[in-house]
Amino acid sequence: MKIGIIGATGYGGLELIRLLTNHPRVDEIHVFSSSEENIQISHKYAHLTNILEQPLQAIETGALSNLDVVFTGTPAGVASTILPQLLGTGPKLIDLSGDFRIQDPTIYEHWYGKPAAPKEAVKQAIYGLPEWNRREIANSELIANPGCYPTATLLSLLPLIKENLIDASQLYTDAKSGVSGAGNKPSQLTHYSELNENFSIYKINQHQHIPEIEQTIRTIAGSEPLLTFNTHLVPMTRGIMATSYAPLTDGTTEKHLKEALHEAYDSEPFVRVFEDKPVFNTKQVYGSNYCDIQIAVDPRTNRATIIGVIDNLMKGAAGQAVQNMNLMCGLDEKAGLTVVPLMI
Amino acid sequence: MKIGIIGATGYGGLELIRLLTNHPRVDEIHVFSSSEENIQISHKYAHLTNILEQPLQAIETGALSNLDVVFTGTPAGVASTILPQLLGTGPKLIDLSGDFRIQDPTIYEHWYGKPAAPKEAVKQAIYGLPEWNRREIANSELIANPGCYPTATLLSLLPLIKENLIDASQLYTDAKSGVSGAGNKPSQLTHYSELNENFSIYKINQHQHIPEIEQTIRTIAGSEPLLTFNTHLVPMTRGIMATSYAPLTDGTTEKHLKEALHEAYDSEPFVRVFEDKPVFNTKQVYGSNYCDIQIAVDPRTNRATIIGVIDNLMKGAAGQAVQNMNLMCGLDEKAGLTVVPLMI
Amino acid sequence: MKIGIIGATGYGGLELIRLLTNHPRVDEIHVFSSSEENIQISHKYAHLTNILEQPLQAIETGALSNLDVVFTGTPAGVASTILPQLLGTGPKLIDLSGDFRIQDPTIYEHWYGKPAAPKEAVKQAIYGLPEWNRREIANSELIANPGCYPTATLLSLLPLIKENLIDASQLYTDAKSGVSGAGNKPSQLTHYSELNENFSIYKINQHQHIPEIEQTIRTIAGSEPLLTFNTHLVPMTRGIMATSYAPLTDGTTEKHLKEALHEAYDSEPFVRVFEDKPVFNTKQVYGSNYCDIQIAVDPRTNRATIIGVIDNLMKGAAGQAVQNMNLMCGLDEKAGLTVVPLMI
Amino acid sequence: MKIGIIGATGYGGLELIRLLTNHPRVDEIHVFSSSEENIQISHKYAHLTNILEQPLQAIETGALSNLDVVFTGTPAGVASTILPQLLGTGPKLIDLSGDFRIQDPTIYEHWYGKPAAPKEAVKQAIYGLPEWNRREIANSELIANPGCYPTATLLSLLPLIKENLIDASQLYTDAKSGVSGAGNKPSQLTHYSELNENFSIYKINQHQHIPEIEQTIRTIAGSEPLLTFNTHLVPMTRGIMATSYAPLTDGTTEKHLKEALHEAYDSEPFVRVFEDKPVFNTKQVYGSNYCDIQIAVDPRTNRATIIGVIDNLMKGAAGQAVQNMNLMCGLDEKAGLTVVPLMI
Repeated sequence: MKIGIIGATGYGGLELIRLLTNHPRVDEIHVFSSSEENIQISHKYAHLTNILEQPLQAIETGALSNLDVVFTGTPAGVASTILPQLLGTGPKLIDLSGDFRIQDPTIYEHWYGKPAAPKEAVKQAIYGLPEWNRREIANSELIANPGCYPTATLLSLLPLIKENLIDASQLYTDAKSGVSGAGNKPSQLTHYSELNENFSIYKINQHQHIPEIEQTIRTIAGSEPLLTFNTHLVPMTRGIMATSYAPLTDGTTEKHLKEALHEAYDSEPFVRVFEDKPVFNTKQVYGSNYCDIQIAVDPRTNRATIIGVIDNLMKGAAGQAVQNMNLMCGLDEKAGLTVVPLMI
Repeated sequence: MKIGIIGATGYGGLELIRLLTNHPRVDEIHVFSSSEENIQISHKYAHLTNILEQPLQAIETGALSNLDVVFTGTPAGVASTILPQLLGTGPKLIDLSGDFRIQDPTIYEHWYGKPAAPKEAVKQAIYGLPEWNRREIANSELIANPGCYPTATLLSLLPLIKENLIDASQLYTDAKSGVSGAGNKPSQLTHYSELNENFSIYKINQHQHIPEIEQTIRTIAGSEPLLTFNTHLVPMTRGIMATSYAPLTDGTTEKHLKEALHEAYDSEPFVRVFEDKPVFNTKQVYGSNYCDIQIAVDPRTNRATIIGVIDNLMKGAAGQAVQNMNLMCGLDEKAGLTVVPLMI
Repeated sequence: MKIGIIGATGYGGLELIRLLTNHPRVDEIHVFSSSEENIQISHKYAHLTNILEQPLQAIETGALSNLDVVFTGTPAGVASTILPQLLGTGPKLIDLSGDFRIQDPTIYEHWYGKPAAPKEAVKQAIYGLPEWNRREIANSELIANPGCYPTATLLSLLPLIKENLIDASQLYTDAKSGVSGAGNKPSQLTHYSELNENFSIYKINQHQHIPEIEQTIRTIAGSEPLLTFNTHLVPMTRGIMATSYAPLTDGTTEKHLKEALHEAYDSEPFVRVFEDKPVFNTKQVYGSNYCDIQIAVDPRTNRATIIGVIDNLMKGAAGQAVQNMNLMCGLDEKAGLTVVPLMI
Repeated sequence: MKIGIIGATGYGGLELIRLLTNHPRVDEIHVFSSSEENIQISHKYAHLTNILEQPLQAIETGALSNLDVVFTGTPAGVASTILPQLLGTGPKLIDLSGDFRIQDPTIYEHWYGKPAAPKEAVKQAIYGLPEWNRREIANSELIANPGCYPTATLLSLLPLIKENLIDASQLYTDAKSGVSGAGNKPSQLTHYSELNENFSIYKINQHQHIPEIEQTIRTIAGSEPLLTFNTHLVPMTRGIMATSYAPLTDGTTEKHLKEALHEAYDSEPFVRVFEDKPVFNTKQVYGSNYCDIQIAVDPRTNRATIIGVIDNLMKGAAGQAVQNMNLMCGLDEKAGLTVVPLMI
């Protein structure tokens, strides 16, 4: 297969290169960038020396339509101008940005502050959360690959909300992310000397992943949630932990929650359910495509604590994108994704 | 003044040494340790070379009772066996452990898994949160210095609960701490290679600071809270952020919350109230005795997000202990505590 | 192939598991430990859940001799008591410790402070640096897998010393390592709160890798070196940089040095030679089996600066061990080792 | 005293504010910036809230000449245009940049790539290394405050070279710095996600501190050195370790080296000489004005390893600048500088 990556020098793009280089069915990787044409990607990122010796190419529809799969790992508002033209021309399309995730353009424009993608393209886009959308993904041409925070939050909450075990109208998610989620563009916020030995809250109650989470709870779990959602920056590169809280519904016990998680995920290749670990952390999925989940019920308050951890660049971005590619192309869903977490 | 520090090689003890060395009214610092008698403290901790050249002394009541102030920075269950004997012998006593914080011995024993301190000693102990207990502290002989998590949580919540602005029966606090809170004893959890690039949740719903927070909300804010409280380990040495969530009470607005915070703290030397900072972080108090607070109300959910940050070794331990010492000894409350945060 | 890993819960062992799980020719992985028999390795290291569900087995010669390859990732002095008994019983043996690296037992005992391995076993052991010993490795039964510091130092220096381009009698290597090189056992030195934001020098002029480097320069480059070698701990988990310095020999220029490196390594799969990068770092090899090398000559001093970087757990331990296994078993040298560096 | 800080929002400037806020003789701090006039400094750096509530002022000679001391913490090439106009107008001048350090303008222009400061101003400037220049500093009007790397390197080497104990013609310094040395301007190099878990070498053999070190060895130790000097970036915010190597001169022993260090520094308030510590690190001076030094002689090679550690923002910049101010103003040299290192 011939693969194209638009926005290849972003962190999502680099992680796609890492995975696709070792994918058993990928023959060629082509890299595209709007701003760095003709530069060898290995000159910009030395770790790719001898691994991917390719010049960055200008984004040009003709070249792209000859590929089998095209990924976009671009800032908000870019894929919405590129991918609609490629629809129907051949390649499977997988967008890692938020451009095709929000069905209602008013909501997109409110949270993203940018014009929404064309309506028909958004309508065709399937939300690429394989554990809940596997069949639709397999038949789709355009995937809206989920956001990093939504993936950790939704995978841990959906089985519980769908079975009506927790009260989705009293939902709180306190999410923490490594810094790579902020992308590769230097800024004061991500300047080493100021971020190191520092823990920050940002976009208080205003993160653009909120409508994505709420929309998916509605469409997949069939429940109208009321979610307080906050995001924090952890002085580390990779990893997300989403810690969610909600009261149990009447008659629900910890056992019910655990059963719901096991039922939803025990046959899933990339979701692992843990029980009663005294310490639960992001490093147990580092560099891998796993989402690990653990829950606990506090008998004092009859509320659940629900924890999901992912590597934000993997299950939160490139790993899930490759999982979607595998499904769209009829390949083994795990192809290229069996990397073992780097616990150290 | 002559000061004694029991448990001087623990992190609370070391931070006390850092502060008291530059305290304008401290003449002598004596260091005590149950396990390392006669060792020069500067041989164990080279940073103290030429600064504090003292041997660690055995813990002996006679020597201690000649001092003006005695601090205990010992593990749970130790100060409760030492300090009661010193009551009434002369020195002001300030315990940095949890031994005298919990009024009900059954509750102490449940959460700490150790025998409680003698009842009369606990009764005499004043909870050392100066912003809310200043007068009692000034008149007391024994201070139960607050825990690190409770300090960040309570300072940010008390004005809001006291004024009945948020619903304390639907309270969630998601707290994050740097690793120094775990003390100086090596363990697998705090082994560099495994903690670095890692974010962990631990003691899920079971942290021993929960009853301390609830008791103080009851006694100071006069409200019966129902609190879900969780603790996380951030890969950094210093700093705590406590992010709390609760619904507003009827008729309350963001303006009311801000006014309550300003009213409570605008004349306080060590609490700063911030408004609408897009990024709010622990480093703005690093190495200092400040507690910085910011709140936001989410109009979508009508819930408050309340954020308190401290340096866990300062306002969360040694800094607050010195603040209490100043009050007990009739000194300027800020003496020795005007250190500026190390933003970088 | 059936593989055994003795010392599987050490960091070298865990990294072998990471690699061998995705090795195309490995069918079974058996894990052995002297101290944690019958414990499921995934219970101790949660990241292996669903990936390697195996109990740790007692170290027993019978079971081991049925395997195709046995790796030892044990502390100094352990492999020397286990592997000699396995010689000739069937499995290929690869020791990641220093037990079989030093040919002269007096020198081993001086630097390691432990009894040397049996002489005949040491004699049979081949130093597993494939770029310089490929043929001998392919024909050997027992490999002394090189140390982490020696790998980075030797790969960068050998071509230059062999061609007599730098003066090996005036050699200085200043080496820096991530903390995982210190292993998985907690200690004050590797306690997070003390190591974080800290850079240390340790074992000044006394690191046990010194005789290994000197011996290999003698045997492979045919030169008698006089090496000053120091080791530093960097607050990061993975990565080694060895910065070496030596005067050029008469008539030598930077061009000669570069040519020697290119000649030695341009056809090597795991050594990359870089020219004139303004910044050169450890992350360009993170998680991979590469050794990246760059040199510069200072015209002011006519001395060379020679820099080698590796991932200490990969090319410095488990990656190189798998490379050796591939050679010993007649497989593609790159099998299981094509992992792309995690630049972020 | 009234103090002005030009470039107050740089890291040197912020550190000066931290120190001068608690300086017993400083009454007013005025902050100046060429690019952010009228902005409250506490709005840009929240940690200064309630501590320094001052607007940034435009750089204007009139206002500056009314001050007692003016510090410049500006990029290369700025102070050389501001300070000469202030010479003779009243204030003592202390430049933290390299503009007045290099006596030979050709050398300055070669290494800095910028026009040198006016000759007469450079001539008047005293190199502000108090341990070796105390008297000249006390009588000077303009101080060239030493660079961070030169401070750590020179303090550890000068006594040994001056006494002819090591061979300065065979000198190697391998220096490592925390990232704050790179200043507050975001860049790809200092972007958190790429620098974290990464150790880098940069400006190989080309750091502009080389001529400063060599010039000072010449003028103070009276020896013509030949120095190889390299600089590395450590993933931490503060701290420098300079590890130097040189052969001993004939007849010299480790004892001679130790004696020379003790003789030079035992009565110095900010230099501490250590003996035979098995681990020696940057954190033992963190946040303080100390330079700690340790040496070891390798009997195998008869070469010395000489290690100096400082906090680059303190003894390497602002701390030393305040020490110079104290000397220039006839104050206690330690005033405002008795801060204890933050070992944790």
